[in-house]
Amino acid sequence: MGVMTLEEKVAQLYGVWTAISEGEEVAPNQHEFSEPLPPWEELTAPGLGQLTRVFGTGPVEPAIGAKVLAQTQRGIIDGSRLGIPAIAHEECLTGFTAWGATVFPTPLAWGASFDAVTVHAMARGIGEVMRSVGVHQGLSPVLDVSFDHRWGRTEETIGEDPYLVAALGSAYTRGLEDAGIVATLKHFAGYSGSSAGRNHAPVRIGPREFADVVLPPFEAALREGGARSVMNSYAAVDGVPAGADPGLLTDLLRGRLGFDGVVVADYFAVSFLETTQGVAGSPADAAALALTAGIDVELPTVRCYGEPLLDLVRSGQLPVELVDRALERVLRQKAELGLLDAGWDPEPAALRAAEELDFDPPAMRALARTLAERSVVLLDDRAGVLPLREPASVAVVGPCADDVLALMGCYAFPNHVGVQHPGMPLGIELPTLLDQVRAEFASASVTYAPGCPVQEPDASGIAEAVRTAQDADVVLAVLGDRAGLFGRGTSGEGCDADDLSLPGSQAELLDALLDTGKPVVVVLLTGRPYALGAVVDRAAAIVQAFFPGEEGAGAVAGVLSGRVNPSGRLPVQVARTPGGSPATYLAPALARKSGISSADPTPAFPFGHGLSYTTFDWSDLAVTGAADGAWPTDGSVTVSCTVRNTGSRSGADVVQLYLHDPVASVVRPVRQLVGFARVELDAGAAARVTFTVHADRTSFTGRDLQRVVEGGDVVLQLGASSEDLRLEAPLRLTGPDRVVGADRVLSTPVEVSAV
Amino acid sequence: MGVMTLEEKVAQLYGVWTAISEGEEVAPNQHEFSEPLPPWEELTAPGLGQLTRVFGTGPVEPAIGAKVLAQTQRGIIDGSRLGIPAIAHEECLTGFTAWGATVFPTPLAWGASFDAVTVHAMARGIGEVMRSVGVHQGLSPVLDVSFDHRWGRTEETIGEDPYLVAALGSAYTRGLEDAGIVATLKHFAGYSGSSAGRNHAPVRIGPREFADVVLPPFEAALREGGARSVMNSYAAVDGVPAGADPGLLTDLLRGRLGFDGVVVADYFAVSFLETTQGVAGSPADAAALALTAGIDVELPTVRCYGEPLLDLVRSGQLPVELVDRALERVLRQKAELGLLDAGWDPEPAALRAAEELDFDPPAMRALARTLAERSVVLLDDRAGVLPLREPASVAVVGPCADDVLALMGCYAFPNHVGVQHPGMPLGIELPTLLDQVRAEFASASVTYAPGCPVQEPDASGIAEAVRTAQDADVVLAVLGDRAGLFGRGTSGEGCDADDLSLPGSQAELLDALLDTGKPVVVVLLTGRPYALGAVVDRAAAIVQAFFPGEEGAGAVAGVLSGRVNPSGRLPVQVARTPGGSPATYLAPALARKSGISSADPTPAFPFGHGLSYTTFDWSDLAVTGAADGAWPTDGSVTVSCTVRNTGSRSGADVVQLYLHDPVASVVRPVRQLVGFARVELDAGAAARVTFTVHADRTSFTGRDLQRVVEGGDVVLQLGASSEDLRLEAPLRLTGPDRVVGADRVLSTPVEVSAV
Repeated sequence: MGVMTLEEKVAQLYGVWTAISEGEEVAPNQHEFSEPLPPWEELTAPGLGQLTRVFGTGPVEPAIGAKVLAQTQRGIIDGSRLGIPAIAHEECLTGFTAWGATVFPTPLAWGASFDAVTVHAMARGIGEVMRSVGVHQGLSPVLDVSFDHRWGRTEETIGEDPYLVAALGSAYTRGLEDAGIVATLKHFAGYSGSSAGRNHAPVRIGPREFADVVLPPFEAALREGGARSVMNSYAAVDGVPAGADPGLLTDLLRGRLGFDGVVVADYFAVSFLETTQGVAGSPADAAALALTAGIDVELPTVRCYGEPLLDLVRSGQLPVELVDRALERVLRQKAELGLLDAGWDPEPAALRAAEELDFDPPAMRALARTLAERSVVLLDDRAGVLPLREPASVAVVGPCADDVLALMGCYAFPNHVGVQHPGMPLGIELPTLLDQVRAEFASASVTYAPGCPVQEPDASGIAEAVRTAQDADVVLAVLGDRAGLFGRGTSGEGCDADDLSLPGSQAELLDALLDTGKPVVVVLLTGRPYALGAVVDRAAAIVQAFFPGEEGAGAVAGVLSGRVNPSGRLPVQVARTPGGSPATYLAPALARKSGISSADPTPAFPFGHGLSYTTFDWSDLAVTGAADGAWPTDGSVTVSCTVRNTGSRSGADVVQLYLHDPVASVVRPVRQLVGFARVELDAGAAARVTFTVHADRTSFTGRDLQRVVEGGDVVLQLGASSEDLRLEAPLRLTGPDRVVGADRVLSTPVEVSAV
Repeated sequence: MGVMTLEEKVAQLYGVWTAISEGEEVAPNQHEFSEPLPPWEELTAPGLGQLTRVFGTGPVEPAIGAKVLAQTQRGIIDGSRLGIPAIAHEECLTGFTAWGATVFPTPLAWGASFDAVTVHAMARGIGEVMRSVGVHQGLSPVLDVSFDHRWGRTEETIGEDPYLVAALGSAYTRGLEDAGIVATLKHFAGYSGSSAGRNHAPVRIGPREFADVVLPPFEAALREGGARSVMNSYAAVDGVPAGADPGLLTDLLRGRLGFDGVVVADYFAVSFLETTQGVAGSPADAAALALTAGIDVELPTVRCYGEPLLDLVRSGQLPVELVDRALERVLRQKAELGLLDAGWDPEPAALRAAEELDFDPPAMRALARTLAERSVVLLDDRAGVLPLREPASVAVVGPCADDVLALMGCYAFPNHVGVQHPGMPLGIELPTLLDQVRAEFASASVTYAPGCPVQEPDASGIAEAVRTAQDADVVLAVLGDRAGLFGRGTSGEGCDADDLSLPGSQAELLDALLDTGKPVVVVLLTGRPYALGAVVDRAAAIVQAFFPGEEGAGAVAGVLSGRVNPSGRLPVQVARTPGGSPATYLAPALARKSGISSADPTPAFPFGHGLSYTTFDWSDLAVTGAADGAWPTDGSVTVSCTVRNTGSRSGADVVQLYLHDPVASVVRPVRQLVGFARVELDAGAAARVTFTVHADRTSFTGRDLQRVVEGGDVVLQLGASSEDLRLEAPLRLTGPDRVVGADRVLSTPVEVSAV
């Protein structure tokens, strides 16, 4: 790379925000870091590594965005000596974060679907739309395993189980990559363990749990998803910020996991090494730490990797080889993307053909509907009121009933950016749940009262809500979150909760509704699981949806009417009490109920739980590959069972395969998900579900911090939830203990065949 | 040791409970493990290592207890071939846990006193009483640093700062050892980090924080306190139970820290390796793991170290050398204690002389009073009502006002054991706070209403309490905890909280009292700091006492009347909101308030906070040993200031020395206590306070997990709390970075001289 000047090299190692929003922040401390940059031509004269969110910073019509991006690329090509285009990246967690684009359910809802096939299709669709307008990289998926549901970004996680996150996260990754978009695994690693669920707070975790819970989704999405980029976590683990940790970003990620793509900084994470973490004394220090650790590209804009980095190299304080190392990765990626091909045209084909650009085409809406319908969880139907049988009158009560924003996560464009532009139309068709209840129950009298706001404590509307409830046959209490950024909501990035109580005055509203004696169906549109212990014995039924997206209102209304048979399963447990965090199902015996503590962490609803309007029978457990129960420590077994729909309507069951390891060299979770299968069955139909489980899937990080398959008794448990075990196969791992590494078997193939 | 049979050797490695209580458990899962033992003579024929709590299991009169112990020892001596007496151990955290013994304030109150001299005197007094009746070992102090105030055993900790715990814990240790009692440091190590504050739950912590926060109190109490015994922690750290961890109990404790005493098991901790931790498959497995790790003695009774251990050694599965290793330690300790001396007489001198045994002599009461008075924290006097100026009428309201048990911690005999024997007299004189308010305000009309129970939700008494309040000039709302064991209380071992709300209906009671508009002085008698954000703007004043012991009611009443000038300082921060745990002051910037999270962990009252009825002026900062601010990385500086009592009455101020390290190679707490001085001053008097701070005191565990003194800017801050900094000395550590080890300087000497 001797042909490149130092300035040309370094210019490849950062992005620039072409249009800084005048509104509120869409990245943490954005305004603090909005130092003036040189004029655009001067800035881009040596070239430019990345373009930051041309579509995702403010409302831009698709065709205009595509033109602006193409023109910007043309300017970079023509205005720089080498003419290397930038990589254009965007956010795309619940769909392309752009005006008018499909809003899919939030990742916690993907988790509830247990449906890797639809998640893959969704991601491929998202990627194709992005690719069609000249975008190269998507800053998704989030592979953080949820530790503490108070964390605002819980909605962005796929749940609290590493295998569920790995399986669906890999499917998403593969979907983006299949569309030619560089998927970006984030946040590497440990972010979700932030103390007390406070965003960016330090992470208290040991190396064993880090290896066994935090890392597996990244391992899977690299190997099985083919991700070409990784983004660092903001948070420090045991005192070391990820962005300054060569052990993590280089030794582990590249050395042990074999990653050869590009590591990008989470927005302003390089600066944070100086301004919040206190491990760098200046922007130059921060640049040196981050580049040395293995962050190749500073995002979203240049602060440390510009002049401060240049000065370090010019003065000999930092070897140019570190710049070259990052540069090689960036250029190799640009080459792979065709950006270095002669005659590369920044105008995408669709623009050249003057096609109408639709970011929310019917096929995408259909996927959004499928995923939404499969993600709604029927938690309880204690009074047997669901599905609602032609009620004469329905009172719809609650602050989330008539709010389109209540259906979407924090990274959906309308919540992420749109709320800052109140004059702008939404850009997509998005009925509220109240709209859809009216449509679904056309013959019923539907009344409505909000009761209280989502977030602000204000009980002044509760009396009217109670009157509305008293006049109806059934009450739908539609409660939950408003996703936003940095305190501008109750869920989402920077919107962390003190505990798991419903926000604002919603608990008080619900209490008043339950006191009426009317049958109350609690409908939750949330980004985290709220504690339901005080509700569970009093509500007629409880329906949990996790920000189900643009087709979500119809999906929920369909579950209420019975048009949709619910099949979602909890990807996170639902707590009984608001305190007691952190707590997930992935816990050893002593983190569960015991006579040794008066604090009882037993959840209201366990991980994996969800009801259906039909019934399923599980039978005919069979195991192969384990003669007399002996499972070689280097072998595979198959575990299979028959699931039969014994009810009168079609539906889907989710067969969950758990591992129970009663005695091990280190303390183990009571049980842990190692496989799952979503099984769609017509009334009366049956299917044979067969898991192929390699012994590697029983491995854990042992005493010496090496991952080991350890001999001894284990039990493979087939459950309808983590607490509803239907069939159990006691086995004994035999043969020598085996140390396994990053090349171990990471997943559990499953076959479903009709019988 | 060839003269000893294997049976005789192994018999030295466990204790036996001479009298199993018929009542409720005083150790976790006690009844589960109460397997029948052989008859006493048969059991003790090969000898016996320890006798478990002759005094502390049921109510025993001092002279009878002493006689029973002596007779039991005589039986062991005469009934075994070798005639080796047992070591008799007892609990003694807040005083000898025996009927009729002085009940001192709980350790959290010691922390509030910042008074190592009185803590040392207290412990020596406790030790002398125990020694006088034939006890050899005390299972104290607790050196766990509080991480999560929900944990029931928070009352047993000295607070949330490792140096405060180290300084007072070492003083306590030295006090016991000065009296000839073997002090037992517990719980080694990490127990207080149990997830969500649930007792025994696994501990999520990294090796750096473990080294920097968990270990220092143990290092100090070994070196400066001279402790001769250590007890393991129940909890697993990152998957490895302490009792099965040779890295902890042998490599670290003996290898690096040089400990050569006896490691005893926490009660049933060896069995728990099998029954709750799942790292052992049988009692024999558990014995092998624990003995190999370095647990020398199984307590409280024999389950794993008896026949299962004998079988392992007899069959060659475990080398006898491991038995010999533990045995040597036990016998060396017995020799040091004189138990192996020819003619050792189990009858203590006091018994032989037929002296009257008084477990609560006047000198001990005086110490209890001094420590109680110094531990009461005046949090707030917003309305300027304190001290109360001859009120005509006082309404005393609240469930803790007229309850002697509300004044004592969980390890005080009346709470620990006495409550199971309702017929028994208390054994000590112990007025309630209501009694002492009546005595202190003899000319006032004092009325009383309990309002609600401590623990059970019951609002039926609130109306009457409000009426009582409305008729008085001032209201004393006396709220707090009831210490108990395993769910039989709101604080104490096994009484963990879901969040930091006041227990039961007490928040509702307080709310109703505040609504009366009367001046309400909130008096808290608690074992943990409860969240006060909802109270702080409405209460006239707030007084916080942490289970102040048998003289505590007088101390609190004295603060209310002004007879006692409050001088306690918070050893734990007081939270603003009930959620948000874990949170302590010892946190880096990102665990504190930031625009990046809507969750605001700013406390209602910070660590180190406490008011006085007089005023203090701090001035004349001086630094020596740092020319031009340069502090050699291997040198000491002195930092001094003058504190003047500028008010009209005598009082004590606590000068707190904090270290602020703005940039380091790892993320550091914003500030951390490195020294303190309690300064008693008459009105108008002044003192010069001089700290001698070695550079070792700035050390922390660096990137490579070695402890390092790192060059660069630091600030020594003199504060009246962790958020009320009065004087600052910016310095620069110069010279090479220094790796330091277990022999580093652990404390900060301080001199106080009149000026």
